[in-house]
Amino acid sequence: MKPLNVGMIGYKFMGKAHSHALKSVNFFFDLTYSPVPKVICGRHLEPLKKAAERWGWEEFSTSWEEVVKREDIDVIDICTSTDTHCAIAKAAAQNKKHIFCEKPLAMNVREAKEMLQAAEEAKIKHMVGFNYRRVPAVRLARKLIEDGKIGKIFHWRAAYLQDWIVDPDFPLIWKLRKEVAGSGPHGDLNSHLIDLAHYLVGDVKSVMCMTTNFIKYRKLPAEERELSTMLTAKSGEGVGEVTVEDASFVVAEFENGVLGAFEATRFAPGRKNYNYFEIYGSKGSLVFNFERMNELQFFSREEDLEVQGFRTILATEGVHPYISAWWPPGHIIGYEHTFIHEFADFLRCIEDDTTPEPNFYDGLKCQAVLDAALLSAERGERVEVKEVLKGVS
Amino acid sequence: MKPLNVGMIGYKFMGKAHSHALKSVNFFFDLTYSPVPKVICGRHLEPLKKAAERWGWEEFSTSWEEVVKREDIDVIDICTSTDTHCAIAKAAAQNKKHIFCEKPLAMNVREAKEMLQAAEEAKIKHMVGFNYRRVPAVRLARKLIEDGKIGKIFHWRAAYLQDWIVDPDFPLIWKLRKEVAGSGPHGDLNSHLIDLAHYLVGDVKSVMCMTTNFIKYRKLPAEERELSTMLTAKSGEGVGEVTVEDASFVVAEFENGVLGAFEATRFAPGRKNYNYFEIYGSKGSLVFNFERMNELQFFSREEDLEVQGFRTILATEGVHPYISAWWPPGHIIGYEHTFIHEFADFLRCIEDDTTPEPNFYDGLKCQAVLDAALLSAERGERVEVKEVLKGVS
Amino acid sequence: MKPLNVGMIGYKFMGKAHSHALKSVNFFFDLTYSPVPKVICGRHLEPLKKAAERWGWEEFSTSWEEVVKREDIDVIDICTSTDTHCAIAKAAAQNKKHIFCEKPLAMNVREAKEMLQAAEEAKIKHMVGFNYRRVPAVRLARKLIEDGKIGKIFHWRAAYLQDWIVDPDFPLIWKLRKEVAGSGPHGDLNSHLIDLAHYLVGDVKSVMCMTTNFIKYRKLPAEERELSTMLTAKSGEGVGEVTVEDASFVVAEFENGVLGAFEATRFAPGRKNYNYFEIYGSKGSLVFNFERMNELQFFSREEDLEVQGFRTILATEGVHPYISAWWPPGHIIGYEHTFIHEFADFLRCIEDDTTPEPNFYDGLKCQAVLDAALLSAERGERVEVKEVLKGVS
Amino acid sequence: MKPLNVGMIGYKFMGKAHSHALKSVNFFFDLTYSPVPKVICGRHLEPLKKAAERWGWEEFSTSWEEVVKREDIDVIDICTSTDTHCAIAKAAAQNKKHIFCEKPLAMNVREAKEMLQAAEEAKIKHMVGFNYRRVPAVRLARKLIEDGKIGKIFHWRAAYLQDWIVDPDFPLIWKLRKEVAGSGPHGDLNSHLIDLAHYLVGDVKSVMCMTTNFIKYRKLPAEERELSTMLTAKSGEGVGEVTVEDASFVVAEFENGVLGAFEATRFAPGRKNYNYFEIYGSKGSLVFNFERMNELQFFSREEDLEVQGFRTILATEGVHPYISAWWPPGHIIGYEHTFIHEFADFLRCIEDDTTPEPNFYDGLKCQAVLDAALLSAERGERVEVKEVLKGVS
Repeated sequence: MKPLNVGMIGYKFMGKAHSHALKSVNFFFDLTYSPVPKVICGRHLEPLKKAAERWGWEEFSTSWEEVVKREDIDVIDICTSTDTHCAIAKAAAQNKKHIFCEKPLAMNVREAKEMLQAAEEAKIKHMVGFNYRRVPAVRLARKLIEDGKIGKIFHWRAAYLQDWIVDPDFPLIWKLRKEVAGSGPHGDLNSHLIDLAHYLVGDVKSVMCMTTNFIKYRKLPAEERELSTMLTAKSGEGVGEVTVEDASFVVAEFENGVLGAFEATRFAPGRKNYNYFEIYGSKGSLVFNFERMNELQFFSREEDLEVQGFRTILATEGVHPYISAWWPPGHIIGYEHTFIHEFADFLRCIEDDTTPEPNFYDGLKCQAVLDAALLSAERGERVEVKEVLKGVS
Repeated sequence: MKPLNVGMIGYKFMGKAHSHALKSVNFFFDLTYSPVPKVICGRHLEPLKKAAERWGWEEFSTSWEEVVKREDIDVIDICTSTDTHCAIAKAAAQNKKHIFCEKPLAMNVREAKEMLQAAEEAKIKHMVGFNYRRVPAVRLARKLIEDGKIGKIFHWRAAYLQDWIVDPDFPLIWKLRKEVAGSGPHGDLNSHLIDLAHYLVGDVKSVMCMTTNFIKYRKLPAEERELSTMLTAKSGEGVGEVTVEDASFVVAEFENGVLGAFEATRFAPGRKNYNYFEIYGSKGSLVFNFERMNELQFFSREEDLEVQGFRTILATEGVHPYISAWWPPGHIIGYEHTFIHEFADFLRCIEDDTTPEPNFYDGLKCQAVLDAALLSAERGERVEVKEVLKGVS
Repeated sequence: MKPLNVGMIGYKFMGKAHSHALKSVNFFFDLTYSPVPKVICGRHLEPLKKAAERWGWEEFSTSWEEVVKREDIDVIDICTSTDTHCAIAKAAAQNKKHIFCEKPLAMNVREAKEMLQAAEEAKIKHMVGFNYRRVPAVRLARKLIEDGKIGKIFHWRAAYLQDWIVDPDFPLIWKLRKEVAGSGPHGDLNSHLIDLAHYLVGDVKSVMCMTTNFIKYRKLPAEERELSTMLTAKSGEGVGEVTVEDASFVVAEFENGVLGAFEATRFAPGRKNYNYFEIYGSKGSLVFNFERMNELQFFSREEDLEVQGFRTILATEGVHPYISAWWPPGHIIGYEHTFIHEFADFLRCIEDDTTPEPNFYDGLKCQAVLDAALLSAERGERVEVKEVLKGVS
Repeated sequence: MKPLNVGMIGYKFMGKAHSHALKSVNFFFDLTYSPVPKVICGRHLEPLKKAAERWGWEEFSTSWEEVVKREDIDVIDICTSTDTHCAIAKAAAQNKKHIFCEKPLAMNVREAKEMLQAAEEAKIKHMVGFNYRRVPAVRLARKLIEDGKIGKIFHWRAAYLQDWIVDPDFPLIWKLRKEVAGSGPHGDLNSHLIDLAHYLVGDVKSVMCMTTNFIKYRKLPAEERELSTMLTAKSGEGVGEVTVEDASFVVAEFENGVLGAFEATRFAPGRKNYNYFEIYGSKGSLVFNFERMNELQFFSREEDLEVQGFRTILATEGVHPYISAWWPPGHIIGYEHTFIHEFADFLRCIEDDTTPEPNFYDGLKCQAVLDAALLSAERGERVEVKEVLKGVS
């Protein structure tokens, strides 16, 4: 196995998930590259040191500007807040590092275009962390569609529901501030759904959107002193304004005539990470829910009517995507595997000199739909995705 | 028990369901009125005679104009296609008959207003057949909301999905012709969802809507020669144009700030009568699916976090609405019961001289949201429900 | 339609269910016989009169001995407690009445043999009320087995779980007294499972059984003064001993090599009428749960491994057993339909002069397995069903 | 963090699972010991070398006799076939190594007693790999029982169903040979259920059991040439006899009066790793299914009847056992975590000098129930667990 040195910027939720994934990617026996967790980078020294020790990083650094320039680093893994993606990615590209960047790719279409341009000019490998593409059940959904089992698609019905800010005492963390996060569940959650729709159904043509906000002011968060295993936030002093939407509901027309919906909220009690979609086509239907990520529901019109029904495929067989690296049937896998699978595919692309998917181009396409929807909500009108893409060219 | 003579106009799907219901309404021991299936009315003599014999009607008639005038008739039950509701209801009201009218109430807001005015002037009892209000689990949902178990509501997510016209060979029956049905799944299915939303959540303020059509031409249906137990349609000669939409997706803002969605289609393979809603509020959540109509899912934030979860309430206990008239717990009831419950409540209102719900006013409110949504789809703009209501005053 | 006069003995839970069913059986258009609810029979005059009025019986009587002799009665429908089945059935047979008898057929194998002999000698039609055979999903299960979709069967795993006597204050009704009921959930619930196993899998060869009792003494029930729509029991004065088991768990070997289990209890909180089975065979599997009686789960090994999974068949299509008499797909039916279907088939057998199933012979076979299991529990040994059958010949 | 050197004997399914777990145990921030994958041991050199490289072991060895004696080794981790457990464990104990041993502990009660005695004499820490105790949802079940939420327990209904040998062409691997495995699904699967019952419900008093065999002869397996990521077996030359049962169904009486069942089979198509139990008590009920291992179903009789229902607790909150080391709510974990949790607890016991659970004593108790059941099947009689325990003392 050949070592490939990784420099990771950011050490919180995504930093933890990526650190974990790097440890297990060798379970894919076909890989020749073996990633080395070289240096982890963050702003707060104490939690950073603990992260490095516990998660097995050789070094730590508080300067991403230095890390992206280091000659011994092959890959820059961007796990920071959205507002920093563009600058870090452009610097990494200029230094010819391969880039794995968390989602959403950027704050807006303009930034996304700059990042894509920088990556293409540098001819480096670039990938966006839409990890749900790499759930085995989702990969299987794509295969069934490609195999013609669903036929011509009529509908995409998707929702990404969470409930972690229903409590008014939950503090104003960065994800609730527009200047850092870009938007709320729209960018955080609808972005995943839009990427899945692009992957499974096709390109979005036009959108109509309504957004809303239920809680306008929240306590400021306490400063982070130490790394917690738990990804929780505590309130500190003072109050600030929530500057992102709390929910965003979108109806969409696709280029291929599909009529669809995307609904994202953080105000759905009982839904924890309910990344859910339904696909209906002339030959069959599919249903997926991340909270039961090992399962894919499939309905086929091509069987005898008498025995038609939604079946629950437990996507844990050796024939299912990625599973042969893991456990026997019925021994389900978890969230962390989506990251392991991403890195495995990224390493394969580096080795084979092929193009990763989803890459910065996919990230840009997703951003255009996100921006068009917010524009629709603002105007009270149907907006064409093309308009947004052209607007910044 | 005091007899109450019923004249029913129409003898197909709804005629069958209503005929069945009239037989069992006496199982509610508190009722003093006992409905008598006096006369059934339709256009085609052969199937009409069979319906009368099999379903226990004393007489049959091919003239609704005569039936609504008969002195011995107390109640007119309208089970015909939507385009005929307005004329029959106005005539019945003028003859001082109580009216039970199937949904949607009318072809448009204008007709609905006329019907309401006629009924109010005649001071008769009027009810609209939004039967899903009378599913015990739905009634329980309303009670939990009224009891404050859900708190302030954030979201309504509803879909009514069917698949009976996915087959391109399914013929052009009246439900696919605008001049008879008014609209497609929008009026047929979204009307139910809108009524449920009005019943459970509150009034809709404004809407954005997209509709579409997947199959433009279909074979004309064969003429009906005999009454079939099966509610199926056969193709005949010739081809005609589908003049209603095949699917209608709506996002909505409610007067009370709720952000919601209504999605209706007949192109969702595997969904047979999937009348589904989710309600999310500050204290809890509810989920209902008619295909499992005896169940209500309830999530409460007011319990220890450790044991929070969506529970499936099997609404078959004596304490649940309507159930004490039926079977012991776990012995589930079916679709037909929604009609028995409607008639039981309608009879109670006649006896007690109280106002039935939902009545023609509720039917009008529903019609206004339906019309506003179609206008939004046409304009590509957000439309206020008020605008539509005012437009015909 | 030709009238067929019914005399029903008993007017409580089963009396209500049968009364309801008789009203709707004409919805099966192929039937020529139309049952007439002639006379209802019971011991307590007041509730009996109310039952007759509300459920539409022409007459009532407090003497079953007279009713079974009436010349104008064609069918005797036995809905009384188990201890009275044998005497009533023998008298009815002697008077050449067709007999529909509720389950379990008898108190023991000896009685069951006498009943079968009397019925055969009288050459009347006889049927036992194992109504779950006539759930469309169960009928479909049988069809799939007959069509070879399950292959050679390996396992039958069945449980019938209820919870209505978990409360120690629930009174000592007749079902808890051995001299009236014969046994507890063993005879009441395992009898249904055994009949289903005979119907779907084959004959039971030998059994091992353990039974237990959790509450030994209960308050005596209050005397019945009036007919309640609710099937509830109230406590009165005094205390009595529970003389039946509270739970009975059985493992069984079938004649065809199947290894199976039958588990019945009234001490399973949350299980209301959880009549549940799983069937596993060389080609596929089936799962049924009465609380979702419109659904059958089916797994097939004959598909591509990639898409194998348990599918939920919503058995509400016109092609499914009995459904063409009812509603369109997805409009589910309820518990009461099992009785309508029983009567429809019984009437067909009378008309066609064919043998109903399940009949008294099936009732006897079921009784033999019940008796063998109780003997096994007593002895602490495996018992052959043959031994019990021979013991009373 | 202090290093703790591990020597692992065996490198197949369990070897892979344990290797994976050792990499991630540091994610529990409270641990001071950090396990070092020092030496992996097996019989076949080529696959062994690959396992060592891919899974990160520093060394490999083909002699377990040498490994257990190495001074630098602190822990012996036994992942071999059941017939070798006793010898390896006794040797490891004699060399004062802490022992983690896979389940079932031994071939029979006699061996289990010897292993327990050796471990106790050596005063080392010993643990048995009943990993399902460490599923967060199972741990939560135990907590709810301890907190009194279930009340007095009435029933335990458990089944462990798989389908990997339904295909007659599946070869005769070691798990199908009595001399290596001890027994079939009885020892492999019922052992897990029995351990869970001991953990959650109490001690088993007596059992009645039936076993059976569906396929008597199978092809011999091909010799293993290389390590596969997939845990599959291929057929080679020749045929051999299956000497273990294919299914084992047990009914059981517990010391505390619970009536229960344990059903294990490898002939249940569609069930992949269906480790399932139901617990019914006077206050509530619990249901668990490993194929949805992140969920626990809970029914409480202590709520208003109106809202009672089985709730699905998604055991992924920070308050749930083990979860605080992992991801935010709804981001589910997988099978591999059960092993990480086992090692975390084992390391804590070594650090704190406390007794691990389940240990060799628990392994012995489980073995006694297993042996009693097989004796019951042989004799056709109820067997007391005590008899088996005494028999070898």
